[in-house]
Amino acid sequence: MRIGELSTVSGVAVATLKYYLREGLLHPGVATAVNQAEYDDSHVRRLRLVRVLLQLGHLSIDEVRTVVAAVDDESLSIHRAFGVAQDAMVTARDRNHPRYAAALADVDDLVSRHGLRVRPDAAVRLMLADAVMTFEQLGLDSLLGQPRLSAFDDLLPTIRDLADAQVASVPVDVTRTEQMEFSVVGTIAFEVAYAALRRLALEHASAVRFEPRRTPRRKD
Amino acid sequence: MRIGELSTVSGVAVATLKYYLREGLLHPGVATAVNQAEYDDSHVRRLRLVRVLLQLGHLSIDEVRTVVAAVDDESLSIHRAFGVAQDAMVTARDRNHPRYAAALADVDDLVSRHGLRVRPDAAVRLMLADAVMTFEQLGLDSLLGQPRLSAFDDLLPTIRDLADAQVASVPVDVTRTEQMEFSVVGTIAFEVAYAALRRLALEHASAVRFEPRRTPRRKD
Repeated sequence: MRIGELSTVSGVAVATLKYYLREGLLHPGVATAVNQAEYDDSHVRRLRLVRVLLQLGHLSIDEVRTVVAAVDDESLSIHRAFGVAQDAMVTARDRNHPRYAAALADVDDLVSRHGLRVRPDAAVRLMLADAVMTFEQLGLDSLLGQPRLSAFDDLLPTIRDLADAQVASVPVDVTRTEQMEFSVVGTIAFEVAYAALRRLALEHASAVRFEPRRTPRRKD
Repeated sequence: MRIGELSTVSGVAVATLKYYLREGLLHPGVATAVNQAEYDDSHVRRLRLVRVLLQLGHLSIDEVRTVVAAVDDESLSIHRAFGVAQDAMVTARDRNHPRYAAALADVDDLVSRHGLRVRPDAAVRLMLADAVMTFEQLGLDSLLGQPRLSAFDDLLPTIRDLADAQVASVPVDVTRTEQMEFSVVGTIAFEVAYAALRRLALEHASAVRFEPRRTPRRKD
């Protein structure tokens, strides 16, 4: 298909498509004439990935470029590429903070306590360390348990079940690129879904605590 | 304290403090002379809130301003103010999308099925609808269950327990402003923590599926 049709099919404006091509977020089409190229389903799928990362994941253009490069780098195993993509999706705050090392040590304790196979330099460790430091700065360390992060010990099996189910749902009968796209998009989409579910539950909990109904409903 | 000391205590540069003052993210100090003002603990706490929203929550300046205004608006009940703050923390993608209404109807079904007290116009509904539409666009509807979103039914009680615990942990013996700051920061910090835990679990699950160890470890 030509670029105009790609725009129609994907719902992305032609100017935006050209921007993505320039920025390397979208691979070039096959040139058919001067200033003319053919696009296919791989472009439609790639646009889906890019849009999800930008709009749902709030990644920057640079971060999306890194994810896309990992998806496309056939020299990386699926697992390794997923690691690179996960790293690109982390924007850690302040790696020079004096408490960072201690917070990271807590994270690494949690990881080894639960026997998780996580790369020793995985960036997602920094994401959890960021949250830990935030609790610390607020004087809310006690919410993290003792040893620190042990407050999450009971929850982790549930979270692992969800993660296992997501990874198990990656289809086998598709290309490596499609498996990667599925994995990355799934990571973001489920993350937003779970966060939204929790915020709905928080609103309910806030209503119950701070605005209890005057007349409790009776079961008649 | 003077602005220089506020900078030292909070770790925020003086130029940034002035920017926050101009943008209304930080309330003015008490003027003590021309071009001189006194700041106090309320400014230190407010900066903590602003930094968490900007750096951990990735909110825009406008979104932070809305949250801060809700925190400060004493005419709003705690519950109502928390709702306004939650709404400001949602950046929904495409409210004109043809599938939006259907996705929102699914969300509202879930909310009423679980008896959640959520405002009929709460923006967090749009956040979940966004995720639903993403699954749809990827042809992954089946992951959502039938009726749609029923795939989350078993998980919701766990999520509600976590939300209840967070709301219960909001201290009673502090000002309304501090309660609000606690609630908003807690929402973001726990959200990042849970998302990070899930990404750690995903990396593990990916390792197990895509790079199984050649020699399984034995328990000797």
